[in-house]
Amino acid sequence: MSILAVGTVAFDSIETPFGTADRVLGGSATYLTLAARYFSDDVRLVGVVGGDFPDRHVEALRTRGVDLEGLTVDPDGETFFWRGRYHYDLNDRDTLDTQLNVLQTFDPQIPASYRDSTIVCLGNLEPTIQRDVLAQVDNPSFVICDTMNYWIENTPDSLRETLRLVDCLVINDAEARELADEPNLVKAASIIRAMGPDILIVKKGEHGALLFSDDIVFSAPAYPLEAIQDPTGAGDTFAGGLAGHLMREGVFNGASLKRGIIYGSAMASFAVEEFGPEQLLRLDASQISKRARAFQDLAHIPELTPLQTA
Amino acid sequence: MSILAVGTVAFDSIETPFGTADRVLGGSATYLTLAARYFSDDVRLVGVVGGDFPDRHVEALRTRGVDLEGLTVDPDGETFFWRGRYHYDLNDRDTLDTQLNVLQTFDPQIPASYRDSTIVCLGNLEPTIQRDVLAQVDNPSFVICDTMNYWIENTPDSLRETLRLVDCLVINDAEARELADEPNLVKAASIIRAMGPDILIVKKGEHGALLFSDDIVFSAPAYPLEAIQDPTGAGDTFAGGLAGHLMREGVFNGASLKRGIIYGSAMASFAVEEFGPEQLLRLDASQISKRARAFQDLAHIPELTPLQTA
Repeated sequence: MSILAVGTVAFDSIETPFGTADRVLGGSATYLTLAARYFSDDVRLVGVVGGDFPDRHVEALRTRGVDLEGLTVDPDGETFFWRGRYHYDLNDRDTLDTQLNVLQTFDPQIPASYRDSTIVCLGNLEPTIQRDVLAQVDNPSFVICDTMNYWIENTPDSLRETLRLVDCLVINDAEARELADEPNLVKAASIIRAMGPDILIVKKGEHGALLFSDDIVFSAPAYPLEAIQDPTGAGDTFAGGLAGHLMREGVFNGASLKRGIIYGSAMASFAVEEFGPEQLLRLDASQISKRARAFQDLAHIPELTPLQTA
Repeated sequence: MSILAVGTVAFDSIETPFGTADRVLGGSATYLTLAARYFSDDVRLVGVVGGDFPDRHVEALRTRGVDLEGLTVDPDGETFFWRGRYHYDLNDRDTLDTQLNVLQTFDPQIPASYRDSTIVCLGNLEPTIQRDVLAQVDNPSFVICDTMNYWIENTPDSLRETLRLVDCLVINDAEARELADEPNLVKAASIIRAMGPDILIVKKGEHGALLFSDDIVFSAPAYPLEAIQDPTGAGDTFAGGLAGHLMREGVFNGASLKRGIIYGSAMASFAVEEFGPEQLLRLDASQISKRARAFQDLAHIPELTPLQTA
């Protein structure tokens, strides 16, 4: 019973209205695995870094229980770098610089010990790379996939091919509308689910998340935070908490997905409270359980009495 | 035990991507009372129309049980008229024409029979008019108030004076941020509640609603609709369902407010399915009860098992 996450391991330089952070540890696989490892003791990372990636970051991941056999170090290359700026509306960000570096030639080779992975999380990468990874895993029970507008616009056919192999697509509301070419989210969900994924989870940032499955629509709230410092990695952290919880339950049904969304939301609510993945490095299990319970209070609708017919 | 609603009674001409409607019955007091009357048999309207307001609209309201003693007819004037256009993002609308007409000289005189009203709903009007109405009610148990960016920007002092008299302010998220001059909604809620209203309800359209009260934060989902025709009046319908349900319970606490928000959301979800207030004219109680229950399914978080400490 194990989780494999493929994605970026990166340096991020981030500006938000609340501060800045320079070349901090980042990347989708970083956030994903650091969140998932609270729920599972077998979390495997597939990614690539350059010779400039410091040992302390490797150790930060390793000491938190992330299996790094799948992390390739290219000694002559430089680590993927992203620089971005968020505005007061934290849903709105500008990418100021992207240096693909070692990611440009990333050709993930899955270690033999990873072939039996139970859950596979395909971080936001070129859809062909996502399929390459999937092809190297024997028989995953559940495949979770992220993508972004760039792939929706530039590699639509390849993305469709990947989507046919996916159980659960996790994207934001703008991406869902764009992928389906349909402004209404309920209709968009049907269109996307017809592309392959049985399950669509729509992330809406400060507005929570929506789950669409066979006969289920579930609306999860967002945790009302007074101090959001940095939304970087929130979506990957969400996916990591979701995958981690699903692994903990070992079943993939409506109830486990709902719970997974709540744990994913709880993890994401911690991640955004500080710059970089700081909180994910030092949370304890009781904090996570407490915040997940807070979601229940937040969303609980008391008993309703039917209206009297006039 | 009665509800008094003051607001506009209007003609609306509406364009949305899904169709158009010309000079249909509209106005905040119209939507408010048509929603509230499903929950209470004593719903009182205060407003003004011109000589051009057709008898059939008066009858539409009267036969649905709305008390119209407080509706002034100015035979020489014309009814308030609004023309607007919505875009694919239905949160985004342009006002194309506003003809205040009889509203320009609106000086609401509350009938003696209305002075004992239990709940007062102050529709979005000039804050001085809202206070004038309030001054003519003896001792309301609960005052609900709406406002908009125009009054926040142009009559801030008068609005503050009104807010000191209000128990529950119901506005949208952009208005809350603007009123508090604070982008974070949680902080904005504290700032606004310090202005007077014990209770703040933030309407977020397709993202649901948030309740902020003394020790409560509650997040209500929006009903996922496949076919939204026309969002006009959704906010007033929400307030009407909220007020109506609160009247039905007769108490104003956390649980009744949460239920009120769900009934308000249910009523609003019906209102937007057709142009104008059509659905509000012909719903029956069982449809409303059923949709309110659907919100419980939508938001229900199954039992959570705490994480094991590593």
